[in-house]
Amino acid sequence: MITIVARSIIKKDKVEEFRKLAEELVRESQKEEGCISYNLFEDIKESNAFTFIEEWKDMEAIEKHNKAVHFTTIVPKFGDLREESTVNLYKRV
Amino acid sequence: MITIVARSIIKKDKVEEFRKLAEELVRESQKEEGCISYNLFEDIKESNAFTFIEEWKDMEAIEKHNKAVHFTTIVPKFGDLREESTVNLYKRV
Repeated sequence: MITIVARSIIKKDKVEEFRKLAEELVRESQKEEGCISYNLFEDIKESNAFTFIEEWKDMEAIEKHNKAVHFTTIVPKFGDLREESTVNLYKRV
Repeated sequence: MITIVARSIIKKDKVEEFRKLAEELVRESQKEEGCISYNLFEDIKESNAFTFIEEWKDMEAIEKHNKAVHFTTIVPKFGDLREESTVNLYKRV
């Protein structure tokens, strides 16, 4: 299993737009075969900071996800909405 | 439920020492009543970067955790082992 933590700081006037796109990405990604879990979280101290926490079966599932139509359609749209983003991939200890 | 993502970059010569302490913290924290999950992850691209991903029932459970003997004994020891750390608290969207 691989866990992804993908944090984004969203431009304050783009939060609603981001949420709608992000929630659609969550819905579609959760349907993918190799997806164990895929959820969106809001930072309780910074209302324009969001994180996806995702659990995938393996790297192959992640590569498929990165080519999925909902990913290739939605994720590029995040670019204009974000101030910064960090993505880290983890394996459990 | 509140999710905590706590990432640390560990000094390269302190990784083993950190892992032992961190694994003890995981074991003890998982026993706490308000703890839904508590796990340690290693960054697959940076072998000296680790993240705790924790799920707690509520803020009260987190405050109890922060006063628990295993927390007050172990977490201060991380200080000398780390280069940097970030802690973010989230609620699910």
